[in-house]
Amino acid sequence: MKKRIGVVLAGCGVYDGSEIHEAVITLLAIDRNGAEAVCMAPNVDQMHVINHLTGEEAKGESRNVLVESARIARGEIKDIATVKADDLDAIIFPGGFGAAKNLCDFAVNGENCKVHPEVQRLVREFKDKQKPQGAVCIAPAVMAGIYKDTDMHPTLTIGNDKGTSGKIVAMGSKHQDCAVEDIVIDQAAKIVTSPAYMLGKSISEVAEGIEKTVKELIKMI
Amino acid sequence: MKKRIGVVLAGCGVYDGSEIHEAVITLLAIDRNGAEAVCMAPNVDQMHVINHLTGEEAKGESRNVLVESARIARGEIKDIATVKADDLDAIIFPGGFGAAKNLCDFAVNGENCKVHPEVQRLVREFKDKQKPQGAVCIAPAVMAGIYKDTDMHPTLTIGNDKGTSGKIVAMGSKHQDCAVEDIVIDQAAKIVTSPAYMLGKSISEVAEGIEKTVKELIKMI
Repeated sequence: MKKRIGVVLAGCGVYDGSEIHEAVITLLAIDRNGAEAVCMAPNVDQMHVINHLTGEEAKGESRNVLVESARIARGEIKDIATVKADDLDAIIFPGGFGAAKNLCDFAVNGENCKVHPEVQRLVREFKDKQKPQGAVCIAPAVMAGIYKDTDMHPTLTIGNDKGTSGKIVAMGSKHQDCAVEDIVIDQAAKIVTSPAYMLGKSISEVAEGIEKTVKELIKMI
Repeated sequence: MKKRIGVVLAGCGVYDGSEIHEAVITLLAIDRNGAEAVCMAPNVDQMHVINHLTGEEAKGESRNVLVESARIARGEIKDIATVKADDLDAIIFPGGFGAAKNLCDFAVNGENCKVHPEVQRLVREFKDKQKPQGAVCIAPAVMAGIYKDTDMHPTLTIGNDKGTSGKIVAMGSKHQDCAVEDIVIDQAAKIVTSPAYMLGKSISEVAEGIEKTVKELIKMI
């Protein structure tokens, strides 16, 4: 039977949702490694909608994270509230501002962020069952937010941005600088991370890091 | 200098815009082959908005093709009206219903479809200058719509769906059945096509066909 890898989405678009390239490269890497992707997202409204042409907020517009994430998943997506760690062999979080705006409020509240309760519940289940997790781009900040009141202090990377890594450290995780094509592995916590577009200048660089992340994640199962 | 490949987008999501996997795989393949992607889309409203979670139309909602396509392009996108064939070495059309709903009205009017005037203008420039073009999934139907009143009758593929291929033939193009991992090359017309999600059951199969399409397209320059 194929290994089942949860992919936690946060909308559809780098500035207010999941980074689309990172999400698709993750789905492709999972399939190419013989595993099955199980897409999910929280059923909440996005923090806001950004017009990706102008970079400005589309005032008055409202979109739902689960509904928009369904665009990346071609409709095959679950409400994260219905998913248990027992249903999956591993889980991975693509990046994009949506991870820091919709899965938690790190984009606004930094190290004082709160994480969406169902996202927190699922990751804590993974922690308790010692099942492997991956996170790329800004998504390791979500991990740090979830682990901050626990006895585990995972080593993560978001690349080399001091402002962001400082906040990760303030939440009790450790940070290790990392090149875009590379990954950081915490064998004890069973967490793999890679900088992706936090550092990447090109889609190929980003793909290299994500492909290594997925391969390592599956190896950890 | 890097070869410049135009990527014509039609929104963001398989049911009302560009198929996101196909678009991202195209961008990745272009970069991995050492060329530069130049994203573009028409500045028009989408035919409609589909809720990708339910598959139903989101009545009363309206989205702009250029603005939504900017999500896939991470904001780096041009209005197709500002692009000339002289600016590019080749062009490629990912699929998704948006190609048949927003770039033309093939989804509604079949072989009697009209193509968006700026899309038609740009492809006709490519034809006249004998520059290479690619199209995957349903997008070859847009090509057929543009070539229907010309002296050229390109050989295209959308896989093996008889309903769709019959309409392509009714517009004066030729159709050749093709497996999802394969491509159809018309050397005289300089057009490469591949079925992608018109046939594909998995993202890996779709990627294989698109990667071959992009490689062949760049070889034709």
